[in-house]
Amino acid sequence: MTTALNASNHFADRLCRAIVSKGNPVLVGLDPRTESLPPGLLQGEGLEQTAKAYASFCRGVIDVVAPLVAAVKPQAAFFEQLGPAGCTALAEVIRYASGKGLLVVIDGKRNDIGTTAAAYAEAYLGPGESSPWGGDALTVSPYLGDDSLTPFTDVARKRGAGIFVLVKTSNPGGKVFQDLMVDEQPLYRHVAALVEEMSKASAGEFGYGVAGAVAGATYPQQLGEIRQAMSHSLLLIPGYGAQGGTAKDCAPAFDDRGLGAIVNNSRGIIFAHQKNEYKEKFGGSRWQEAVDAATRDMIDQLAAETSAGRLRRS
Amino acid sequence: MTTALNASNHFADRLCRAIVSKGNPVLVGLDPRTESLPPGLLQGEGLEQTAKAYASFCRGVIDVVAPLVAAVKPQAAFFEQLGPAGCTALAEVIRYASGKGLLVVIDGKRNDIGTTAAAYAEAYLGPGESSPWGGDALTVSPYLGDDSLTPFTDVARKRGAGIFVLVKTSNPGGKVFQDLMVDEQPLYRHVAALVEEMSKASAGEFGYGVAGAVAGATYPQQLGEIRQAMSHSLLLIPGYGAQGGTAKDCAPAFDDRGLGAIVNNSRGIIFAHQKNEYKEKFGGSRWQEAVDAATRDMIDQLAAETSAGRLRRS
Repeated sequence: MTTALNASNHFADRLCRAIVSKGNPVLVGLDPRTESLPPGLLQGEGLEQTAKAYASFCRGVIDVVAPLVAAVKPQAAFFEQLGPAGCTALAEVIRYASGKGLLVVIDGKRNDIGTTAAAYAEAYLGPGESSPWGGDALTVSPYLGDDSLTPFTDVARKRGAGIFVLVKTSNPGGKVFQDLMVDEQPLYRHVAALVEEMSKASAGEFGYGVAGAVAGATYPQQLGEIRQAMSHSLLLIPGYGAQGGTAKDCAPAFDDRGLGAIVNNSRGIIFAHQKNEYKEKFGGSRWQEAVDAATRDMIDQLAAETSAGRLRRS
Repeated sequence: MTTALNASNHFADRLCRAIVSKGNPVLVGLDPRTESLPPGLLQGEGLEQTAKAYASFCRGVIDVVAPLVAAVKPQAAFFEQLGPAGCTALAEVIRYASGKGLLVVIDGKRNDIGTTAAAYAEAYLGPGESSPWGGDALTVSPYLGDDSLTPFTDVARKRGAGIFVLVKTSNPGGKVFQDLMVDEQPLYRHVAALVEEMSKASAGEFGYGVAGAVAGATYPQQLGEIRQAMSHSLLLIPGYGAQGGTAKDCAPAFDDRGLGAIVNNSRGIIFAHQKNEYKEKFGGSRWQEAVDAATRDMIDQLAAETSAGRLRRS
């Protein structure tokens, strides 16, 4: 499927078109960590040198995955850990990924109130030159309530961008607040209802809106309930691989077309050269081949176990 | 009161000592906005020039308030809105404030899971050269649960830093999730209980721990209940001034010594030159005198209406 002329720049439509075009829902997480970098990338000490190595490493990953997947998700924390030099590297990585035709979901889990939320939205939302950072989407935290989310959806709609709001996170401690029962429903379902309302109000041609939800593969039953309750919301699924989520666990998140969800894998792909199954075959110096193999393996696993397999036959 | 030799580098102790030393609990919020900068500061267009103007403006504010107050709170969003150049300005402003003897609370409302939360903690927590950004404290969002907060308190304890967790925020929409009733208590009280547990476990010589809470002046009754329920937790109070909170509204947040809370004011101090009460007297070019007058006025108001008045007589 090729992009139609005059196709809408609506975020969910752009993402769905990219998923259809690539034939899979894999989201590659860019979580650089000094201790896991392939040999030879880190040329010297200090934050500046490490930032250069992160940028170089991420460009190397992007070169491999750009022909294969629809989107990447840089994790802001690992770049910010290097101070301002890391921020410069993050911006460079985002531009590089966009230049290679990838959609970029910035994982910053930002939020604040009123005009401060608007400042974050204007900072991160908007591909290419339409925002300072150039993200297609941003992850957002919901604790501050509805008036902290609308500045993001307002900017997102204007700039063809999207947000993914934390609903049911993949970590064990996520349940501490998210599963508290309010009127016979866990808290995360109340968050889900608000996000779904925003998605429904902004649904594009594929039926999905500019507000999506983060829901972990580590809670497959809840993932299915969330899919049912949020029929207009794209789901960003963390927790696949290293955290224990499987392709089968992700199945309930997809619609009948194989759309509606993107499944993130960070360590399992970008540091595949450290995993036994790829280490022997490729060794450290051929780490990009390990990234390629791990990405293709994940695509195959999701195709075998979820409706996303239909994308390959379309 | 002077700092004792070998005084603990415990964050709450350092903050309490600074409050006692300055004789007031005012926290000056550094929220630069292009449209409100005093005349002459913005020398040209573009993100780089604006970032330089933000840094110059914040240094000017810091020069005025450093002799008067204990701490400043730069708002990360406004710096990030300028892309990497803004991040460089933020780091510069933090260093400058630290160099002037101020404690710095970075308002980033960050969080994530596990090792990613640890990356944010290591990025922002730790004054001076002990962390890349050099913050004494960071605001943190609680939605991700207990295992997302412990990486922050672990790093905070090691580096003499602190966190302020969002409990009851000052915005109208905060109630949408924070006030949902769980077991006959609003959600924010459940968050408060977890934070208080962490504070109690890390209490220093003043009785306060490294985990504090954000609780808005716009909800004075709840602020008093939070003070009662969180006897080991420092409170960071937004919502004073522009959002409608008064000095009297803040009174329930303080202990009998006039300690236990810091009250933030951003626009009301840094953009005092735009307010009628200071504009006529100082005009735009004498904006630093307006900052000085507004800071002293706020100190007086809190001294008159809260137990913080006792700090002036100590």
